[in-house]
Amino acid sequence: MAHQTDIEIARAAHKLPIQEIGAKLGIGAEDLVPYGHDKAKVSQRLIESVRNHATGKLILVTAINPTPAGEGKTTTTVGLGDGLNRIGQRAAVCIREASLGPNFGMKGGAAGGGHAQIVPMEDMNLHFTGDFHAITSAHNLLSAMIDNHIYWGNGLEIDQRRVVWRRVLDMNDRALRDTVTSLGGVSNGFPRQTGFDITVASEVMAILCLATSLGDLERRLGDMIVAYRRDKSPVTARDIKADGAMTVLLKDALQPNLVQTLENNPAFVHGGPFANIAHGCNSVMATTTALKLADYVVTEAGFGADLGAEKFMDIKCRKAGLSPDAVVLVATCRAIKMNGGVAKDDLGQENVAAIEAGCPNVGRHIANLAQFGVPVVVAINHFLGDTEAELAAVKAYVAEQGVEAILCTHWAQGGAGTEALARKVVEMAEGGTAQFAPLYPDEMPLWEKIETIATRIYHAGEVTADKSVRAQLAAWEAEGHGHLPICMAKTQYSFSTDPARRGAPSGHSVPVREVRLAAGAGFIVVICGEIMTMPGLPRVPSAESIRLNAEGLIEGLF
Amino acid sequence: MAHQTDIEIARAAHKLPIQEIGAKLGIGAEDLVPYGHDKAKVSQRLIESVRNHATGKLILVTAINPTPAGEGKTTTTVGLGDGLNRIGQRAAVCIREASLGPNFGMKGGAAGGGHAQIVPMEDMNLHFTGDFHAITSAHNLLSAMIDNHIYWGNGLEIDQRRVVWRRVLDMNDRALRDTVTSLGGVSNGFPRQTGFDITVASEVMAILCLATSLGDLERRLGDMIVAYRRDKSPVTARDIKADGAMTVLLKDALQPNLVQTLENNPAFVHGGPFANIAHGCNSVMATTTALKLADYVVTEAGFGADLGAEKFMDIKCRKAGLSPDAVVLVATCRAIKMNGGVAKDDLGQENVAAIEAGCPNVGRHIANLAQFGVPVVVAINHFLGDTEAELAAVKAYVAEQGVEAILCTHWAQGGAGTEALARKVVEMAEGGTAQFAPLYPDEMPLWEKIETIATRIYHAGEVTADKSVRAQLAAWEAEGHGHLPICMAKTQYSFSTDPARRGAPSGHSVPVREVRLAAGAGFIVVICGEIMTMPGLPRVPSAESIRLNAEGLIEGLF
Repeated sequence: MAHQTDIEIARAAHKLPIQEIGAKLGIGAEDLVPYGHDKAKVSQRLIESVRNHATGKLILVTAINPTPAGEGKTTTTVGLGDGLNRIGQRAAVCIREASLGPNFGMKGGAAGGGHAQIVPMEDMNLHFTGDFHAITSAHNLLSAMIDNHIYWGNGLEIDQRRVVWRRVLDMNDRALRDTVTSLGGVSNGFPRQTGFDITVASEVMAILCLATSLGDLERRLGDMIVAYRRDKSPVTARDIKADGAMTVLLKDALQPNLVQTLENNPAFVHGGPFANIAHGCNSVMATTTALKLADYVVTEAGFGADLGAEKFMDIKCRKAGLSPDAVVLVATCRAIKMNGGVAKDDLGQENVAAIEAGCPNVGRHIANLAQFGVPVVVAINHFLGDTEAELAAVKAYVAEQGVEAILCTHWAQGGAGTEALARKVVEMAEGGTAQFAPLYPDEMPLWEKIETIATRIYHAGEVTADKSVRAQLAAWEAEGHGHLPICMAKTQYSFSTDPARRGAPSGHSVPVREVRLAAGAGFIVVICGEIMTMPGLPRVPSAESIRLNAEGLIEGLF
Repeated sequence: MAHQTDIEIARAAHKLPIQEIGAKLGIGAEDLVPYGHDKAKVSQRLIESVRNHATGKLILVTAINPTPAGEGKTTTTVGLGDGLNRIGQRAAVCIREASLGPNFGMKGGAAGGGHAQIVPMEDMNLHFTGDFHAITSAHNLLSAMIDNHIYWGNGLEIDQRRVVWRRVLDMNDRALRDTVTSLGGVSNGFPRQTGFDITVASEVMAILCLATSLGDLERRLGDMIVAYRRDKSPVTARDIKADGAMTVLLKDALQPNLVQTLENNPAFVHGGPFANIAHGCNSVMATTTALKLADYVVTEAGFGADLGAEKFMDIKCRKAGLSPDAVVLVATCRAIKMNGGVAKDDLGQENVAAIEAGCPNVGRHIANLAQFGVPVVVAINHFLGDTEAELAAVKAYVAEQGVEAILCTHWAQGGAGTEALARKVVEMAEGGTAQFAPLYPDEMPLWEKIETIATRIYHAGEVTADKSVRAQLAAWEAEGHGHLPICMAKTQYSFSTDPARRGAPSGHSVPVREVRLAAGAGFIVVICGEIMTMPGLPRVPSAESIRLNAEGLIEGLF
């Protein structure tokens, strides 16, 4: 059999009409709002009508620290969903939507890979159901209303130097990072230095993914802080009276999107917040709705478990009242070898010593996840070059940690390649051993929360910050924001803040550069290092070779 | 019966599933790409498959010079479509899509009014099927690629002072009219003064509405001029290699949207270019496809007949090979009285003298339309306050021009109120008297084309312009653009360039301030007066009162 690319496999998929996919979850055609024949939103009516249904089991798929070698977290999420369906469980997958802009820089990604993908892949890499466009519109409406308020007399007494609300576009456009607006004279307003972020960095995106209802969405939007007065008192989107109109713009976007896996199993693809300055999970609406419709819901979190799983547990699960029943930690021989010091170009050679040197990264994540009270299994996502000796070394190491490692071949075989993993997941979930608890209580002081994450998850020796950072945290506590969870923004490549320190470093220092209050999303963003919120295009952007070919198929996007 | 608002009528509509509307035109469900249950795009396959079908009759609805009193051009377009269906013709309506941004300034509009509306009205005022978002993305991708090209070495030797391609948002945001981008240092590029227009002002919008196929779309996008070199030679979107990716972003947007009237007749709502700096008509794809599916297609053009109908004839019909069979000129007693000098507040009183004073505006348009070789009928759109004497005066005046004026009551009665108009339209169209010809030939010099429009349509005495304007026109002719038609941008309120000169002024001067080459859209924009391409929000924007109410219905948008 000739090797097929992801896009070839996706295009050869035998998709079912989306109504048949909905029917697998008991959703009637009248409760699916179709977008084409293979995509639909789930109606608000259905979401409300199932709120009191029994809740299925929630499985989180996370990973060891990512490397350029790739771990296949989404691929494993999709594969496990298919595997669970194959062994007779009614399972649904919940993942994030892709951002449009970056596809024109580097080639866009599949949702999954090989024979574990979600389709229609092309639509998901383009406009999909318009959710991100709706977020862009809602965000920029607020921006326009802020400047308009100032223009017409500034009744709220906004300090024009302290407008913190920027604009967004779903585009990689470095020219917009830092701009001056309202030039050109009196009729264009007051010149002001500001800029644009990419849409996925918008607090509106984080809110859409944490909101539990339309009412909750509107309340959170209203809570967003957009500016400060000279006396440093905050001005919110509610003060600007933008919350109602933003909710109207987002009402359809809040409804989860239903699509399907290559094996025609249901997949919810909804929301896509940054995993650094936001929490990096698909929407609460999708996850909670899926849990009312399926026996098993398999979802993932951004980056490695130190960032993604921690935020999933401490932000998403805490705030949405979710309780995960099992965690799958994805690892590959290649990524373990890189964590063991091997360069990417040398991954082709068998290197059991590097496996052994890299395995402490796996062990660290296993131990960390245990702190949340949820049982863990390691999924080894099989690559063709893996050797028996390497695989045996991984399994032996993981077994020493008291955890099972299961080889998964979903990339080549689809759900048939994850049946063993699926059975193990069912065993863990049905065993009822999960005793989920977040890492820290709401009432812990903010600084202590940061220290708790840094020491217990990153195994750091200390957290450092300017006095101004601590003063800011204290001020927020005085204003009633002390109960919020922490959203850490640091490199995904290391437990430390140095992306080059792979493996399982300990005792390092975590320098906090800046803290930001996301009062609508409901978390404090703690920034350690440089975080880019508006990417640029590379020298030769992929957009240059994207086109429709003579058959009407898209070339160059994948 | 209590008086119902447009939105109440629209919400009470008994909509049919969009598949049933498609079936009325012979479109199978497999060729409708649904967006919800009441909106669909027509598949590319169907569009191609009907290209050799017989062509229906094309009816243009235009109007006398608009006034704040309202003429009801769209309402009459919808009413006539329903009326034609009532008398047994298979008729479809083709109108433009609404822009999202302005809805948050002033209250949004219905598509039509009273009992002559297109639904779903709320969706059409919000994201609809995402066409405008796709245009925004495609436009801004090109913008990002231009700055990115300069950033990485500027191999095309673009003069950074002569980048003419701006950015767009579908938002009323005056702060973005005039900006400086790429501040913040080396990694953000070269600082440059530029700005944003509203999406409907994008040349991409005009192109989407004039393209006849995906291939034609890509060619036109590639032809767009985005910048000039120091030697003034143009740099195109094709030089930037953005045309292919832009086409991919627009491939769905190019497919016409099908919705329905309150009387469940098919309506295509597709595209929405400005009627000043662009040609102000719905898409060629929608019109030509509708003509292959229906016996009668009723469409409209922006503003009054001096601008809208002239551009419809000289740009859209000329370029798309369309041949209108009849023209309906919409007039109201109120608008005629305002053209006769009455102030808006005094419209409630009977004033036959003012009717007589204003009728020359109607007569001028009738005479102008005759120059295109297409038979004309006047539709008097009935308002409740119209008196018998006023209506009689209009009819008498119109009869003197050798044309029939027919009273239409579609606002109150739907299609039943336009049956007489529909019968007249059929009589004119079946009579085969139309001998359509554009006003001027392609090969006429550009300046002469401008003079031809100004003298024969506006009845001006002269056209004036700086020497630089004439030199620019001559330069374009030398570069091979002399065959392009003219797209006039002037006030819609008068035949002259002074919005206060209502009625039928003659002998005035038309000052040309600026000319712009839209090489992709394929016309020369001739700007007479100030043209706003990025609106602002008013002191109290309607967005402040837009919200979802307890029943989940949108309040404040209409």
